[in-house]
Amino acid sequence: MSSFKPEALDLSHHLSDLAKARQTSPLKGLFRYWGKPGLISLAGGLPSPAYFPYSDISANVLVSNSFPVEPTQGSSSFSWLWKLFGADKLEKTTSVTIPKYPLRPEDINLATALQYGLSGGLPQLQKIVKEFTDKVFQPGYENYTTMLHAGNTDAWNKVVITLCNPGEGVLVSKWTYPSAMASMQPFNIKPIPVDIDAQGMRSDALRTVLVEWDETARGMPRPHVIYAVPIGENPTGTTTGLARKKEIYQICVEFGEILVEDDPYFFLQEGVYVPKSQRGHQSHAGSGVDDERFIASLEPSYLKLDYQGRVIRLDTFSKTIAPGCRLGWYTCTPQFAERLERAAETSTQAPCGFGQALVTATLQEWGYEGYMRWLKALRLQYTIRRDYFVDCLAEEFQLTIAPGTTGMWEGCQVYTGFAKPKRNLTGYFNEKAPMSNALFSFVPPTSGMFVWIKVHFDQHPSFATLGAESMEMKLWIELAEAGVLFGPGAMFCPTGDYASERTGHFRISFSNSENGEMKKATEIFGAVIRKFMGDL
Amino acid sequence: MSSFKPEALDLSHHLSDLAKARQTSPLKGLFRYWGKPGLISLAGGLPSPAYFPYSDISANVLVSNSFPVEPTQGSSSFSWLWKLFGADKLEKTTSVTIPKYPLRPEDINLATALQYGLSGGLPQLQKIVKEFTDKVFQPGYENYTTMLHAGNTDAWNKVVITLCNPGEGVLVSKWTYPSAMASMQPFNIKPIPVDIDAQGMRSDALRTVLVEWDETARGMPRPHVIYAVPIGENPTGTTTGLARKKEIYQICVEFGEILVEDDPYFFLQEGVYVPKSQRGHQSHAGSGVDDERFIASLEPSYLKLDYQGRVIRLDTFSKTIAPGCRLGWYTCTPQFAERLERAAETSTQAPCGFGQALVTATLQEWGYEGYMRWLKALRLQYTIRRDYFVDCLAEEFQLTIAPGTTGMWEGCQVYTGFAKPKRNLTGYFNEKAPMSNALFSFVPPTSGMFVWIKVHFDQHPSFATLGAESMEMKLWIELAEAGVLFGPGAMFCPTGDYASERTGHFRISFSNSENGEMKKATEIFGAVIRKFMGDL
Repeated sequence: MSSFKPEALDLSHHLSDLAKARQTSPLKGLFRYWGKPGLISLAGGLPSPAYFPYSDISANVLVSNSFPVEPTQGSSSFSWLWKLFGADKLEKTTSVTIPKYPLRPEDINLATALQYGLSGGLPQLQKIVKEFTDKVFQPGYENYTTMLHAGNTDAWNKVVITLCNPGEGVLVSKWTYPSAMASMQPFNIKPIPVDIDAQGMRSDALRTVLVEWDETARGMPRPHVIYAVPIGENPTGTTTGLARKKEIYQICVEFGEILVEDDPYFFLQEGVYVPKSQRGHQSHAGSGVDDERFIASLEPSYLKLDYQGRVIRLDTFSKTIAPGCRLGWYTCTPQFAERLERAAETSTQAPCGFGQALVTATLQEWGYEGYMRWLKALRLQYTIRRDYFVDCLAEEFQLTIAPGTTGMWEGCQVYTGFAKPKRNLTGYFNEKAPMSNALFSFVPPTSGMFVWIKVHFDQHPSFATLGAESMEMKLWIELAEAGVLFGPGAMFCPTGDYASERTGHFRISFSNSENGEMKKATEIFGAVIRKFMGDL
Repeated sequence: MSSFKPEALDLSHHLSDLAKARQTSPLKGLFRYWGKPGLISLAGGLPSPAYFPYSDISANVLVSNSFPVEPTQGSSSFSWLWKLFGADKLEKTTSVTIPKYPLRPEDINLATALQYGLSGGLPQLQKIVKEFTDKVFQPGYENYTTMLHAGNTDAWNKVVITLCNPGEGVLVSKWTYPSAMASMQPFNIKPIPVDIDAQGMRSDALRTVLVEWDETARGMPRPHVIYAVPIGENPTGTTTGLARKKEIYQICVEFGEILVEDDPYFFLQEGVYVPKSQRGHQSHAGSGVDDERFIASLEPSYLKLDYQGRVIRLDTFSKTIAPGCRLGWYTCTPQFAERLERAAETSTQAPCGFGQALVTATLQEWGYEGYMRWLKALRLQYTIRRDYFVDCLAEEFQLTIAPGTTGMWEGCQVYTGFAKPKRNLTGYFNEKAPMSNALFSFVPPTSGMFVWIKVHFDQHPSFATLGAESMEMKLWIELAEAGVLFGPGAMFCPTGDYASERTGHFRISFSNSENGEMKKATEIFGAVIRKFMGDL
């Protein structure tokens, strides 16, 4: 634990003019009488809770051990069965109820949750996320602040306009999350791409960009903000390890950077893909163990390294509970939190009270240990899905595995897909047939929800005339017409400067489809890409 | 119905640079295959609904006729009884349940509501608000768009940065909602106050500001946006009638203005206060009647007059269901809606799925007629509260009623509060004692949740040295220390230029307190202001 005192830090040079201009809420003055015993407040614009038309709300919540933490045969999702027979017959649930008026004042209740409230969220949920952050992310200094927000996309939108003025740049991975870039773009805050490898943003490339920054040539000051998705980078599925994180944090210290850690996939750390034939029934590393060992088995948050208050971490319940919660939390210094709270007061106000109440009741019902049990199982479930989808590719294509020699996959075990040898006249595969051209390559993701594939359009005779970008769109349309939708690679190019690529890309999500759908999608992909690349 | 075709309107000169710069979502390209039968989508970043930990959620919803529509003795809120005995024993409720997987595809369900979804909201709720808008607000042209948003404050924040560039001004009422002003302020969009009267913004004053606008002297172009809270203006409680609305809309046409109608209190149209002694048990105008007559009894929305697509209306469920819903909807032209949808995609994304699902289930359970029944009763409930609070003032003070001669209350029946005559030595009031100085004045609100009082600090000997603003704060603190919290008037001054006022102001909310609390608060107010104004 660092002896750093966030309250002593002057962060004002990191704040945008917009953030500096936000006035302290005039309501602040009212707060000094907040909770004064016997005070009658006729100050707020509060409707009477008598007219909230809910006596109570309830949920049947899955028990926290609903999914296994050890891989067993048939442990993949049963949701098709649920759909068929009705969830109540197969799921084990426990009921939670939130009354309008609580039995004990400290209980979660609708009279408070559905009323206007503090932008930072319900105290009961604030307490839960603070304790969770403490135990799981273990920030490197005391007196950090956790504060609820309305989902990571909105949180990032608020953070970037709090930190950056129009015309400034933000350092981002070469391929990254398009909605985050779209938040910046209308404010004329520009993404500055940094080269990546199998661990995401490269520290050497980051240093080079910062060292060589030429304000005149670039037409903007050296960026002071880094946007990072260190786990399950969207779209590449890379995982930034501890050593790399230390290097990047050290660069933040040297160059005075603020690092925004957008980490929705933190608990989806699936580890290295092992081909099916070599895969045992061994436990997923860490999932079947106690909480401390489970946490230790995960790549840590940048927060753990943060001894100077340089990290603004964004957590969300979108991947651990459900995206529709539109609920998450910031972890950062009190000073940044104060500016972000002001931003919330004049826009989203507080996250939805129904969502806050139900998530709070769920987490209270499960308890910390139950939630950790849920998260361990979630990690295994997505690992099984990742494995299943890569297995499908291995069945549909002839996959070779070889170390990458250039670009982001240098030194990685790169999987390259070729058309399988054709059947000969007697119906047998001719294993000795000459290998066709490489169709696509990928490195199986180590976290997150996506496989990022490169399509070798440069092997195609039309490449010289069409170029990668238009070939990518052409193939994307042919796939869609044939019945399978991928994410077009160009979407994930932060600068929009995709034309110079020699390969096309697709982001393929393995998070949401049944096994049968993934299998069928892979077969369609095989048929379409073989035809497209001229290898029927 | 106007023959105006919104699709033919060029609104681009009303869009800010920020709004123009928003790129059409790259996801739009994916939507052309949306819903294609048999399509397998591996394009999105969707977690599997199998891992949403809810089999179902339920609510016990008050029946739509829970509150009376006719005033009867004892029809005020029973919520203290509910708190004492438990709501379930006294309330009549009906249960709604939202399953994860629906029995019929069109049914509201958690697999959809808790998933990433369209920024515009769940189709079932979109359908409800469209029909509601059609029947209740009756827009003046066809092909308008309704689109869900995350509450009026966030919606206004998105609207104002969609319409205005930094350095521009927005026309607002002289006293208005501080959070709306605070949304503009960091973007350097300035409120331009327009004088008001008992109907809110004055059309003649608005015209004068626009006609006499001197771009050089003002240092900004003539404002092209009006922010209006026509019903229950916060803080003044005024109601803009149809004739005034027609005048203001005509000015919008003449001067090319866009009018943003922020209308959370639409259904809290309480009408003119009748002193208790003159009040019969007559039906609240319109509340006990059929839906068409009820709607006709309400001052209409600006939408009804809108034949040129100049109105962006903001509706919210905050006052009709509960503020914690953080849910409402825009009504505007498709072009404005498209830009606002882009703004949502890169920030709030969609409103919370729990809130959308529960509000949808509630409104489906009640049906249109049930919801109208609920709204009629709500209007009466707040009318009873308004009446009760003004009655309390009439008991605590000697109130005179006289036509106002200057300022915003010219021609209104202005109520002025004096200290009651003191008891004489035998314990009787001396009705013939000379009248003390006026303590405060107000016009009872005709809609909304607030009484706006002027305190006659100019009658106080210290006025010349202290001024109204610091006397207001001094009295506000004395009231708070004595146990009652009002909203300080300075909060509601959009420009912050409060120093030149000769009176102080308080906004007093009658929406949320029990009768006993309101009575006690009035007594404390009486004791404190009499002492403060030197009339013990």
